[in-house]
Amino acid sequence: MQYRTIIRITGLLMGLFSMTMLPPALVAILYSDGGGIAFFQAFVVSLFLGFSLWYPNRQYRAELRTREGFLIVVLFWTVLGSIGALPFVFASEPQMSWTDSFFESFSALTTTGATVITGLDHLPKAILFYRHLLQWLGGMGIIVLAVAILPVLGIGGMQLYRAEIPGPVKDSKMTPRIAETAKALWYIYLLLTISCATAFWFAGMDVFDAICHSFSTIAIGGFSTHDASIGYFNSPVINLICVFFLLISAVNFSLHFAAFSRRGINLKVYVKDAEFKVLIGVQLALTVICFLVLFNSGIYDSAEDTLGHALFQAVSVSTTAGFGTESFHSWPLFLPMLLIFSSFIGGSGGSTAGGIKVIRMILLLLQGSRELKRLVHPRAIFSIRMGNVALPDRVVDAVWGFFSAYALVFLISMLSLLALGMDNVTAFSATAACLNNLGPGLGEVASNYADISDGAKWVLLITMLFGRLEVFTLLVLFTPAFWKN
Amino acid sequence: MQYRTIIRITGLLMGLFSMTMLPPALVAILYSDGGGIAFFQAFVVSLFLGFSLWYPNRQYRAELRTREGFLIVVLFWTVLGSIGALPFVFASEPQMSWTDSFFESFSALTTTGATVITGLDHLPKAILFYRHLLQWLGGMGIIVLAVAILPVLGIGGMQLYRAEIPGPVKDSKMTPRIAETAKALWYIYLLLTISCATAFWFAGMDVFDAICHSFSTIAIGGFSTHDASIGYFNSPVINLICVFFLLISAVNFSLHFAAFSRRGINLKVYVKDAEFKVLIGVQLALTVICFLVLFNSGIYDSAEDTLGHALFQAVSVSTTAGFGTESFHSWPLFLPMLLIFSSFIGGSGGSTAGGIKVIRMILLLLQGSRELKRLVHPRAIFSIRMGNVALPDRVVDAVWGFFSAYALVFLISMLSLLALGMDNVTAFSATAACLNNLGPGLGEVASNYADISDGAKWVLLITMLFGRLEVFTLLVLFTPAFWKN
Ligand SMILES: [K+]
Ligand SMILES: [K+]
Repeated sequence: MQYRTIIRITGLLMGLFSMTMLPPALVAILYSDGGGIAFFQAFVVSLFLGFSLWYPNRQYRAELRTREGFLIVVLFWTVLGSIGALPFVFASEPQMSWTDSFFESFSALTTTGATVITGLDHLPKAILFYRHLLQWLGGMGIIVLAVAILPVLGIGGMQLYRAEIPGPVKDSKMTPRIAETAKALWYIYLLLTISCATAFWFAGMDVFDAICHSFSTIAIGGFSTHDASIGYFNSPVINLICVFFLLISAVNFSLHFAAFSRRGINLKVYVKDAEFKVLIGVQLALTVICFLVLFNSGIYDSAEDTLGHALFQAVSVSTTAGFGTESFHSWPLFLPMLLIFSSFIGGSGGSTAGGIKVIRMILLLLQGSRELKRLVHPRAIFSIRMGNVALPDRVVDAVWGFFSAYALVFLISMLSLLALGMDNVTAFSATAACLNNLGPGLGEVASNYADISDGAKWVLLITMLFGRLEVFTLLVLFTPAFWKN
Repeated sequence: MQYRTIIRITGLLMGLFSMTMLPPALVAILYSDGGGIAFFQAFVVSLFLGFSLWYPNRQYRAELRTREGFLIVVLFWTVLGSIGALPFVFASEPQMSWTDSFFESFSALTTTGATVITGLDHLPKAILFYRHLLQWLGGMGIIVLAVAILPVLGIGGMQLYRAEIPGPVKDSKMTPRIAETAKALWYIYLLLTISCATAFWFAGMDVFDAICHSFSTIAIGGFSTHDASIGYFNSPVINLICVFFLLISAVNFSLHFAAFSRRGINLKVYVKDAEFKVLIGVQLALTVICFLVLFNSGIYDSAEDTLGHALFQAVSVSTTAGFGTESFHSWPLFLPMLLIFSSFIGGSGGSTAGGIKVIRMILLLLQGSRELKRLVHPRAIFSIRMGNVALPDRVVDAVWGFFSAYALVFLISMLSLLALGMDNVTAFSATAACLNNLGPGLGEVASNYADISDGAKWVLLITMLFGRLEVFTLLVLFTPAFWKN
């Protein structure tokens, strides 16, 4: 293991990340909200720490292998998550414990969007802006991780997306080198964010809210500057804009990359993609179910109103954004549970969404149907096909492995919460909401995570990390084989 | 498809099954409890129905293929389950609706042991005896299904147990023909039941209770003749006897067959078997956890008392028996939830226990650890081994398929219950308890299923059937390929 190279890279990352503290400091000055000092302190500390890691190792530039890749990815999230907690620790308003600071930071950076802060509407703007910025950076990190790094590492069948393996994304001719890919992806990401912010602004948000909510929408993070979340604006147009950009962000960014290339715009890329079609189909189905149940129970005055709320909540929860509207908690229990279950599907691979991912669900269903065919025709050979290409057994194996590891993490996390004395509904929904990087749950964590115990917060922080790092990236570090030479 | 042969066999089965009505009728006469007439009616009806199916097709004796095997297995449980409901329908005490009668009959025959009847202590003896007899016959059916039929059909990786595939059970040199195997297994089953009944009797139960509870213990069914279940006897010795025979019944019956063969007794067979060791390990671990948590919370007076209750409930729930003691409901929520989760593991394949089965869990873990190894060494080839033998990919695929199909059935069942208006805890635990053929759940179904809606009862009846038929046996009937020639 090239430890010193890894330390050098970690130092660089921290140094780079320290810059994150400057925009909120600027916001603090703009609004003279007195919150600036905490960010300046955090900037100095993280710059210093980063420098101390980087300087003694600046000569170490060994070629990195897959194994170091895992470690760097995990360090990226854990180290930046920890550094990201500093402004919360230093801030005098809100007063936050170390546990709460870490929880908020990891929740932001993993784009989970579970919060321990209440009274958002009265917080210093700098703190609000910073929370959204963290989500936005986390979203960027995920895109690069999911599109450029995980396929190379081969996590959970994502080698499927690897350029050299024939598959639905092959046509996109993704630039193979991580750096260039990353640059192109960030460009798309930035463009989407600007479009989303502009749309929110036109629809009536003030500039600050528009920017903040565009960050948390494109990152599918779900943070808001108001306790009432998007429900605060009480605007069907804003809800629709949010839905539109959530759906775009839940699509594999490789598809955006392929659709908007230098050769011009080619929207057929989407229609041809199996994962895209299933994603949209799932959203439609959920919306229809929510509409029918809500319409039947007569919670809203008009059919139009009902449809608007059904669409917004279906997309918000099932893409794992977790934005809320006020009336969600009054829905019949079946719907919140259905939507929380749907967050296990989540968005596409290579998007900012959480969950198991649509592509893996498709593969699980194809494999399930192959098993049924095998029972009827025991001697026949059936291959699993995506488009016209038979998938290698290795990919299928990896997806199965992913699914059961995901289930295992879910189980251990939920049992830990129960052991810490949490009630059943809260434990179930909090585990699902954190593992799927969704955010809000049901019961005690329906709107925030402020009232649960410190122990539970740490369990859930780790659960978020497992979800965001696709379980195996983190799990592999706990195997002896990983550390053996 | 050889329909007329299948109808002939179904008719035969029904005719044979009509005999089941006679022992309860005899019990009714013995205790002069007036319940005999219902059983006589059921006997006549089922004998007549069976004859009408058999007689016109008595000449059809086509060779059956795998496909007909699936259909016969499913018919065995559905047709006998329906016929088995007749005495409940006909009985004047207790007065039961059609839904309740079917629920009770399917719950008994699948050895689930969920009951809709309350006031067991005051029921006619004939009805009580009949419920236990149904469980006992269901348990017999399961053993034959799991040891002799499923391996041939190749359900959920159970081809692992097939004699021609090298594996841990190969040494047992299982008589290959189903009929002979069945005979040998029933002999073991009968012997175990007699031993269990004798032990219960010596420990203080009256003859009737001893026989009934031996039936529901060996079948891991969990029915009792008292509302308070085994807790009624309030006897540590009876609890221990119950634990002992539950553990024996949760072991693969092929092992018993191998251990007690004509060549003499050879207990090493058990110690050498990986599944047996894991089964016992899981029970021990659960007992220790329960003991520690209970001791810490000080529910019982002495450590001895605490250990007794911990052991009994751990084994009763995790082997999917579902016998209760009075104090279980006062345990900290973590423990009931832990035990319900453990019922997903269940007992060994080829036993009367429900759940996913220990052997499949072992394979899932081995495959998960292979995935981790593959991430670290992407170019290496790792095979999955049980004992000294590498398992064919086909077996591993089938186990994955089983796991996700199981998860899917769980999800659909739980969502259906929520849609029918059930609360979260009840829906979760009822689904788990019925899919794993465990019996009692939490919340509204902690002691019985009398108070849930008719719709919910039908959902759960189907869930039990999916669990007992290892999901795929039933699922395969819903594929078009199955019905195509
Ligand atoms: K989120
Ligand atoms: K049972």
